[in-house]
Amino acid sequence: MSKANLFYAQSGGVTSVINASACGVIETARQNRDKIGKVYAGLNGIVGALNEDLIDTNKESSRAIASLRSTPAGAFGSCRYKLKSFSKNQREYERLMDVFRAHNIRYFLYNGGGDSQDTANKVSQLSLDRGSPITCIGVPKTVDNDLPITDNCPGFGSVAKYVAVSIREAGLDVASMCESSTKVFVMEVMGRHAGWIAGAAGLASEQAGDAPHIILFPEIPFNRDKFLRKVKNCVKKNGHCVIVVSEGAQNKDGSFLAASGHKDAFGHAQLGGVAPFIANMVKDELGYKYHWAVADYLQRAARHIASKTDVEQAYAVGKAAVEFALKGKNAVMPAIVRGKGKRYSWKN
Amino acid sequence: MSKANLFYAQSGGVTSVINASACGVIETARQNRDKIGKVYAGLNGIVGALNEDLIDTNKESSRAIASLRSTPAGAFGSCRYKLKSFSKNQREYERLMDVFRAHNIRYFLYNGGGDSQDTANKVSQLSLDRGSPITCIGVPKTVDNDLPITDNCPGFGSVAKYVAVSIREAGLDVASMCESSTKVFVMEVMGRHAGWIAGAAGLASEQAGDAPHIILFPEIPFNRDKFLRKVKNCVKKNGHCVIVVSEGAQNKDGSFLAASGHKDAFGHAQLGGVAPFIANMVKDELGYKYHWAVADYLQRAARHIASKTDVEQAYAVGKAAVEFALKGKNAVMPAIVRGKGKRYSWKN
Repeated sequence: MSKANLFYAQSGGVTSVINASACGVIETARQNRDKIGKVYAGLNGIVGALNEDLIDTNKESSRAIASLRSTPAGAFGSCRYKLKSFSKNQREYERLMDVFRAHNIRYFLYNGGGDSQDTANKVSQLSLDRGSPITCIGVPKTVDNDLPITDNCPGFGSVAKYVAVSIREAGLDVASMCESSTKVFVMEVMGRHAGWIAGAAGLASEQAGDAPHIILFPEIPFNRDKFLRKVKNCVKKNGHCVIVVSEGAQNKDGSFLAASGHKDAFGHAQLGGVAPFIANMVKDELGYKYHWAVADYLQRAARHIASKTDVEQAYAVGKAAVEFALKGKNAVMPAIVRGKGKRYSWKN
Repeated sequence: MSKANLFYAQSGGVTSVINASACGVIETARQNRDKIGKVYAGLNGIVGALNEDLIDTNKESSRAIASLRSTPAGAFGSCRYKLKSFSKNQREYERLMDVFRAHNIRYFLYNGGGDSQDTANKVSQLSLDRGSPITCIGVPKTVDNDLPITDNCPGFGSVAKYVAVSIREAGLDVASMCESSTKVFVMEVMGRHAGWIAGAAGLASEQAGDAPHIILFPEIPFNRDKFLRKVKNCVKKNGHCVIVVSEGAQNKDGSFLAASGHKDAFGHAQLGGVAPFIANMVKDELGYKYHWAVADYLQRAARHIASKTDVEQAYAVGKAAVEFALKGKNAVMPAIVRGKGKRYSWKN
């Protein structure tokens, strides 16, 4: 029997460093050619396995693989596709097992957020039940920074840097114009249920009076009166007010401040437009001239300003995932530990 | 009588390199201490002269002045304030003359776009009429890139780079997700009446199929049917469609696609929100899942990705303005000439 092959797939919203994880996976697998045969990447993530659209990365030069480290977005394509529970969609799991068997795939590395880690875990359980065990390792990735156990998630650090730099630059712009022009600037950032990205904008502020002056988190219900009072006081004191609002900012009843009404494949509401909503509220109630920005994909795609640490960590979790697989670990995810210089695994 | 002093003011929307021009002005003036005494900067632009709020830059260290080269926004404050015609507001011009006289200012360097060049010219004419001539030199600056004569305008190159890099990164993001997620991405960029910034986004495309696929210019009336047909064909062919739209995109009758109704001090309509307008049109008519971004101030403030050439040109026009003043030129603006390695002046 030939050496076992490895299947790697990217899942969910891409980041500016997810390809650095792919680079870590493929380069580490190549350093272990005695144990791992081919590294297949799924075309458009797990869908590539279901459709038997497998990209044979062994055909790529080491130079091409090395350049993944600095390539934004998902080089092999990603997808928003969640496998249902086994009881609800047995056929899909059977299909996955069949494709893995047909291509002698015994390692499944799934690079994604919470939903993807859940899928990897399910596949692992099922393969054990079937007696043809697949080693499943999760590779953490999410700009939302909301995976448990790991100190932080690859992808987040770069968005944090983008958001902090952008709001500092825009904040200086507003400060220099506010005497006769824009007094209130609102920037909308990602983070449906987690305020990490919004919070990272606070890194731009070094001393009292620096932008941003107000951050609206999804975790703290929006209080209209308190907010408007703060804006007014801020403009009185500083001449201007710079606001960062998370796309997931919510009312007291849990409804989003500005939901567009559309839902994605995971059933999440598709958000957007809370910045103009907030800006118009300020204009209507306080009369200040405003501007607003919605960074949207620009923030998570911004490889040009990626965090060096983030790139290194993204590579490291890819590398660690292969090492874990070769050590016989299963249904685990490498995690980042702050200041310890070592990694540990997390068992679901 | 003491040496003549110089007054420098920033005007209109700031750029990521306008302080490089300030740096060029002040450093060149310091190299000519035998002819120029103090360099005053107007606090918040021309308003600083009217209010006699003059910043004595001679008090700043050469290190502080050198650091202007890499500081975004307007270090001394800018303003949206247009002097009316002399017949309509004689008092303001008299006040300006009085302040200039009181502080022995005989050089007036005005760093701005078309409106500011107009003001500099008016002040020059008036001072000649009064027999106490002020040397007025314009220092070009505008992200819109719409000043005549000069090959390009300082400030534009950096926005061009920001927009091209951003749409390439976001375009790769959309391409890698489009199989199961967002198919249409719309990015709104600045440029009320000039499509230079929107056009610069096209630099991101190297081969057929690369983003951006559609650019909506303010100079070309929007044709809804043609646009929707293009989007549909593009998604069919490439799986996704990346659109750049200028904030000034217009209907056939000259009305803005999405005007917010507010006006700035120059009477220009304050725009914003054409990206969600276009995105919703695509969703309603074609049903594609979309995302949109509005970069707004982020694009003109983005010093972190400023163009090296732009920084050098911004410095050079500041330096040239002082040299012109010392050579006895008046009511001129240094211009950039492509590939010639020399500058020439433009007489209004």
